[in-house]
Amino acid sequence: MTKPHKDAKPVLGIVGVGLIGGSIGLAARRSGKFGDLVGAGRNPGKLAKAKSLGCIDEGHGDLGVLARRADVIVFCTPVDQIVAQVISIAGQCKPGTLITDAGSTKALIVAEVEEHLPEHVEFIGSHPLAGSEKTGAEYARSDLFDKRLTIITPTERTPAAVERRAEEFWTSLGSRVARLSPEEHDRALAMTSHLPHLLASALAGILPKELHEFTANGFRDTTRVAAGEPALWAPIFLHNQIELIEAALGLQHRLIEFTEALLAANEPALTRLLADGKKVRDDLGS
Amino acid sequence: MTKPHKDAKPVLGIVGVGLIGGSIGLAARRSGKFGDLVGAGRNPGKLAKAKSLGCIDEGHGDLGVLARRADVIVFCTPVDQIVAQVISIAGQCKPGTLITDAGSTKALIVAEVEEHLPEHVEFIGSHPLAGSEKTGAEYARSDLFDKRLTIITPTERTPAAVERRAEEFWTSLGSRVARLSPEEHDRALAMTSHLPHLLASALAGILPKELHEFTANGFRDTTRVAAGEPALWAPIFLHNQIELIEAALGLQHRLIEFTEALLAANEPALTRLLADGKKVRDDLGS
Repeated sequence: MTKPHKDAKPVLGIVGVGLIGGSIGLAARRSGKFGDLVGAGRNPGKLAKAKSLGCIDEGHGDLGVLARRADVIVFCTPVDQIVAQVISIAGQCKPGTLITDAGSTKALIVAEVEEHLPEHVEFIGSHPLAGSEKTGAEYARSDLFDKRLTIITPTERTPAAVERRAEEFWTSLGSRVARLSPEEHDRALAMTSHLPHLLASALAGILPKELHEFTANGFRDTTRVAAGEPALWAPIFLHNQIELIEAALGLQHRLIEFTEALLAANEPALTRLLADGKKVRDDLGS
Repeated sequence: MTKPHKDAKPVLGIVGVGLIGGSIGLAARRSGKFGDLVGAGRNPGKLAKAKSLGCIDEGHGDLGVLARRADVIVFCTPVDQIVAQVISIAGQCKPGTLITDAGSTKALIVAEVEEHLPEHVEFIGSHPLAGSEKTGAEYARSDLFDKRLTIITPTERTPAAVERRAEEFWTSLGSRVARLSPEEHDRALAMTSHLPHLLASALAGILPKELHEFTANGFRDTTRVAAGEPALWAPIFLHNQIELIEAALGLQHRLIEFTEALLAANEPALTRLLADGKKVRDDLGS
């Protein structure tokens, strides 16, 4: 038997076993490239559920246990918790441990982690574009990352070998990988994710109760992401404050163009504005 | 054999055999309550396709043929064509013919048709809330209206018997039916359909090409309806000009609240705004 012992494969640590963390566990198991899948989180019930669903092999309330065992660690916790958690456990990690995260913002997280990280561990920011308005390991899927894009965000301080390890990690889960600087990431995501969330939430939030019954698929699609957890999204918005405000101003400018065309009953202008949107939407595919 | 001859059942005329008209045909056939399904439209290719898909039994380029044969006629044409088409054929209709439509706006259509309709036919406005960004009979489905809501818009001039006939018609296609005045309809739909479309289009329209690859499900859901046909939607927006501008101003107000909370880094305020949206969206269901 030449097959290596299970423990020869890298141990994967997953901090936060919700939709993303749970799916990372399932996809890592499917890949066959990891040894034990070690989960950690504050909520024993959620850890037990993730374990029963096969997302992790063991769950710990104590991050230290995970830190001492894992070769690769992914933080799948809310963006406002990642920095403190990474720094709190980095000292206990084995030399050469790769730490990354799945947070929806990158500039602030990467800057603060890089400032405080001890030299014997490696960090690179990541963001798999595979979220959902759903939360919890019960929605985790082994194919959540298949054909999706994960953005990794190296900086001038990131060794090429660390980039490669991160790329191999996400690729092993089924994802494609792109590279952006943390700042480029946040500028892009302000437009592609944070502004849509803000808009969906604004639109849902102003719908009077008596009109609920007159909504159909269009309203439901347009506002779907508004069902996301406010406690997760408020910190994302605040991490990306400036870029998100800028994106919102761009949107407001376009809304004013629509309003002006409407006021003037300018059908060609309205049609052009609608055609602009259709062209982009058709490009994106279903 | 006591079963009535097929011709004893009412002949259904469908003007415009796209997604909605085609689905009306399929649902009417499924109901077993109609005799011949007579389609009409300007495009011979689309009529032939609708016929081959079973949406209609015969297709005519000439609205007059349909007018002379049908007992019930539904106009599924763009909102800026319905009035002229109804008026152009009403004189040729049989006495007691029920005419309705499936247009996304009602006040202007109903007022103009009521002003010009001859006395021997009946008209009531309808709007089945079952549209889609897709167009064409190839997407038609016999169950498109099942459990969906159709709003009928009687006025003080609408006989109760006409309301009942319209309600029976849409119910026979699988739809639930609600009643609103044409003006109430337009105010409601400005908020539940036309504003979401405007927003989706605005958001899609400002996405730079280089960010297309960084979109994921959230952006796609939020902008899905922007793929609708500009030539259909510009007239809808213009029919509902005032109500839509008012809805857009309400949305802009909420966007400013978000922007202020962001600028002030006011996390409780942001969380409240997001929670407002989540509450409504959770209420609507998937």
